[in-house]
Amino acid sequence: FCLWSEGKKKKPLKVKEPNWHALPGSFFLLFGLWWSVKYPLKYSCRKNKNACYLGSRAGFQRLEFVEGIIKAVFALIGMVAEQFVPDGPHLKLYNYEEKHWDHLMNWQHATMYLFYGISGLVDIVAHGTNALPVAMDRMMLSLAVFIEGFLFCYHLHGRAMLDVHVHQLLLFAIFGAAVCIFLEVFFRGSIVLEMLRTSLCILQGSWFWQIGFVLYPPNGSPEWNQMDHTNMMFLTMCYCWHYAFAFLILAVNYTIVSW
Amino acid sequence: FCLWSEGKKKKPLKVKEPNWHALPGSFFLLFGLWWSVKYPLKYSCRKNKNACYLGSRAGFQRLEFVEGIIKAVFALIGMVAEQFVPDGPHLKLYNYEEKHWDHLMNWQHATMYLFYGISGLVDIVAHGTNALPVAMDRMMLSLAVFIEGFLFCYHLHGRAMLDVHVHQLLLFAIFGAAVCIFLEVFFRGSIVLEMLRTSLCILQGSWFWQIGFVLYPPNGSPEWNQMDHTNMMFLTMCYCWHYAFAFLILAVNYTIVSW
Amino acid sequence: FCLWSEGKKKKPLKVKEPNWHALPGSFFLLFGLWWSVKYPLKYSCRKNKNACYLGSRAGFQRLEFVEGIIKAVFALIGMVAEQFVPDGPHLKLYNYEEKHWDHLMNWQHATMYLFYGISGLVDIVAHGTNALPVAMDRMMLSLAVFIEGFLFCYHLHGRAMLDVHVHQLLLFAIFGAAVCIFLEVFFRGSIVLEMLRTSLCILQGSWFWQIGFVLYPPNGSPEWNQMDHTNMMFLTMCYCWHYAFAFLILAVNYTIVSW
Amino acid sequence: FCLWSEGKKKKPLKVKEPNWHALPGSFFLLFGLWWSVKYPLKYSCRKNKNACYLGSRAGFQRLEFVEGIIKAVFALIGMVAEQFVPDGPHLKLYNYEEKHWDHLMNWQHATMYLFYGISGLVDIVAHGTNALPVAMDRMMLSLAVFIEGFLFCYHLHGRAMLDVHVHQLLLFAIFGAAVCIFLEVFFRGSIVLEMLRTSLCILQGSWFWQIGFVLYPPNGSPEWNQMDHTNMMFLTMCYCWHYAFAFLILAVNYTIVSW
Repeated sequence: FCLWSEGKKKKPLKVKEPNWHALPGSFFLLFGLWWSVKYPLKYSCRKNKNACYLGSRAGFQRLEFVEGIIKAVFALIGMVAEQFVPDGPHLKLYNYEEKHWDHLMNWQHATMYLFYGISGLVDIVAHGTNALPVAMDRMMLSLAVFIEGFLFCYHLHGRAMLDVHVHQLLLFAIFGAAVCIFLEVFFRGSIVLEMLRTSLCILQGSWFWQIGFVLYPPNGSPEWNQMDHTNMMFLTMCYCWHYAFAFLILAVNYTIVSW
Repeated sequence: FCLWSEGKKKKPLKVKEPNWHALPGSFFLLFGLWWSVKYPLKYSCRKNKNACYLGSRAGFQRLEFVEGIIKAVFALIGMVAEQFVPDGPHLKLYNYEEKHWDHLMNWQHATMYLFYGISGLVDIVAHGTNALPVAMDRMMLSLAVFIEGFLFCYHLHGRAMLDVHVHQLLLFAIFGAAVCIFLEVFFRGSIVLEMLRTSLCILQGSWFWQIGFVLYPPNGSPEWNQMDHTNMMFLTMCYCWHYAFAFLILAVNYTIVSW
Repeated sequence: FCLWSEGKKKKPLKVKEPNWHALPGSFFLLFGLWWSVKYPLKYSCRKNKNACYLGSRAGFQRLEFVEGIIKAVFALIGMVAEQFVPDGPHLKLYNYEEKHWDHLMNWQHATMYLFYGISGLVDIVAHGTNALPVAMDRMMLSLAVFIEGFLFCYHLHGRAMLDVHVHQLLLFAIFGAAVCIFLEVFFRGSIVLEMLRTSLCILQGSWFWQIGFVLYPPNGSPEWNQMDHTNMMFLTMCYCWHYAFAFLILAVNYTIVSW
Repeated sequence: FCLWSEGKKKKPLKVKEPNWHALPGSFFLLFGLWWSVKYPLKYSCRKNKNACYLGSRAGFQRLEFVEGIIKAVFALIGMVAEQFVPDGPHLKLYNYEEKHWDHLMNWQHATMYLFYGISGLVDIVAHGTNALPVAMDRMMLSLAVFIEGFLFCYHLHGRAMLDVHVHQLLLFAIFGAAVCIFLEVFFRGSIVLEMLRTSLCILQGSWFWQIGFVLYPPNGSPEWNQMDHTNMMFLTMCYCWHYAFAFLILAVNYTIVSW
């Protein structure tokens, strides 16, 4: 995810880069928005049983099955893209000529996608057949999110202060989501936890976009001063506004769905 | 909340400053004291059902509704005050002339109030209508408290040792309360958690006052030596006494209410 | 608790000092041993109801009442002793002549005892009358243990490496016990948590004694080299042996009681 | 476990060393693989009750009893081996002639094995008789794993960066497993937690092997550069692949068992 900010130092491909941070951001936003419709719908279905089109639990189970497929496909696309972009590793892990690891960043991102892929597969099996216990899907999703955070922790060495800070802020959303999803293993179907997860997912998505704009200001606007302490404080606050914004979206979707 | 301690270095407005630390302190104290009456009352109502004036659960639900309104109003007052005090930002975020962020501290405090405001709104909707699940109010309150702590963590850079220490002590009460309220999502109505929350809320309020007195000694008494290690140790202990005092208040109110 | 190790640097009262570390150690050992008898007894009473002398729950409730009284009395003794030992503060907090805090260490220990005293009082009220919810006793005990650890954290500055290390090891037992007791609020009467708490209490007690022997070797044996890294490693391991020993005691008492 | 990497600096016994890291690794792998068969089996037995050979709960209880014996025997072998290998301590703790602790590393490993031994004994008593509550076995196992991690934390001082890093990665699996097993005290028989534990156990086992290969490259291949930052990043990623691999094994065994 954070690959291009490192690559930047070598080749100034400024124009294209914001798109790359935007890619995972869009994935998370898309899932967050979808969940912000799905869970209120599920909740109001459970409350007044007859007023609901989508029918019984079976309908929602089919939805989770489809979600699993989409997740697995997205993860596959992500992995292939990370490997076969023009300056990607093309499945080559070690550069024997120059004796160093090749494109480690792309490999790390591919690993992150891999676990989301596994989570998608578990979703498919758990909701498509009844061989696996259903709670397994939450555990795998929690692990996938945790491993995303885990790998993030270990590839921020040697960056500029502001760059590290914006990524660290992301870690709160990531680990928060991992804990929240793990709790769902035990409190499955708790609307409160589902809303919390949705809000953290939207936050993560919109913050990815924000990182893109901070690190690669569009339209020739000046770069951010990486060493200015007040910039750091502003971004911390900005992060909170993103979160408030995520709740605004949740509230709007909730009221629309409730009607 | 901690704005004026920074502003101080520029303009020595000594006389007014303790009042500013006192403002949020009073809010928290007020809520803490109110809760220390409300929860014992609710508990004894639940125990002996007929001896209770306020009646059934409906009465307490109406109370929570009113609480939400008060919280939202307080938060609105706080936000407006932070913006429009004489040396406030007046909604201006960036100073284009001098090219720096404007009054970041006030904006941070306004952000803190914003989340308490959201929490108040959620209270109103959750207890006024039945569109939202009731447990939502605890989750939003927990998040509001967490974000208060989160923003606190990131604006203590570059202060004197003692100043940092007294604010760090506050973080124990803040994050403790956030965890406690989050647990209430799952163990709603547990009198033990409610008492714990109340005690931490009183502690936070009285500690805000204490911070005010430490940083701006009233009546011309000498300033505290910011570098003295024993001062730090004394304040740590003092913090525990405040907590013991919070329990004393709880105990007194509890016995009065029980009668 | 750790006062005399600091005092030592000024006055070499070597002979008496181990006794001082031994005092709280003995308290914890005594409680740990008592609990290692009480909880297995309670458990086997619950399993085969008729074979039990002590009778129904009322018997055990009276026991907890008595425990509360003993705890409160011990805490009172501790507080008075800390204040009125020959080189204690005698209730004087600030030395106005030399302008420094007076005997802060004794005050800190008195504060620790104070919270154990409050916990004892809550025990008495919760089990003697039925005004307070019973789970309150666990919460106050958890807080008392937590505050003991909290104050410990803040009075290890400026000591020698080994001295800090042996006290840090103690913190594991203290915070472990605090978490364990807090869990008991929700899983009251779980024999597993009660055994865990008992083992941690015995560990704390025996480690206090060990600290005494490490810092003040008796009978003129040479002092420990405070800077030797292997000493630190040995003590870490030794800590684990103490814990294994605590389990041995538990096992012996358990088998005796079961018969 | 990590003894030989220290010993290495003194005597270059390169050829034999990978075997030593492999020993505990094999234990963990063996247990992980066994659990990856046992728990799916138990789960499908519980789902369709008549299609199961092993019969009722009694069969599985006898299994846990046997497991306890094996664990205790392994632990005993480990302890004896650590003591009586040619360059071991032979039960001598302190070298009085040279005045230093003797073979502390072996003693630390023996201590780790000791707690696994205690856990095995508790398993035997809890499942063989009905004197002990059954949940005790999980608590002791959780403590044994925790103490393994605890001792690990304190014997990484003064090693090279990469060496520390690969051991730190191991700590995630260890403490993750400790938390997971502790949760099982309260959510006993949850297939999700059992699978998580199994996966972490396999991860730990295979990572021990990986550490062996990293620190002592076999067949005369060149040593890893301990100071290269990219090596660290590769190994972090590699750790995730090991985990993905653990899930692959779990999935394969699960499907075989389900049929």
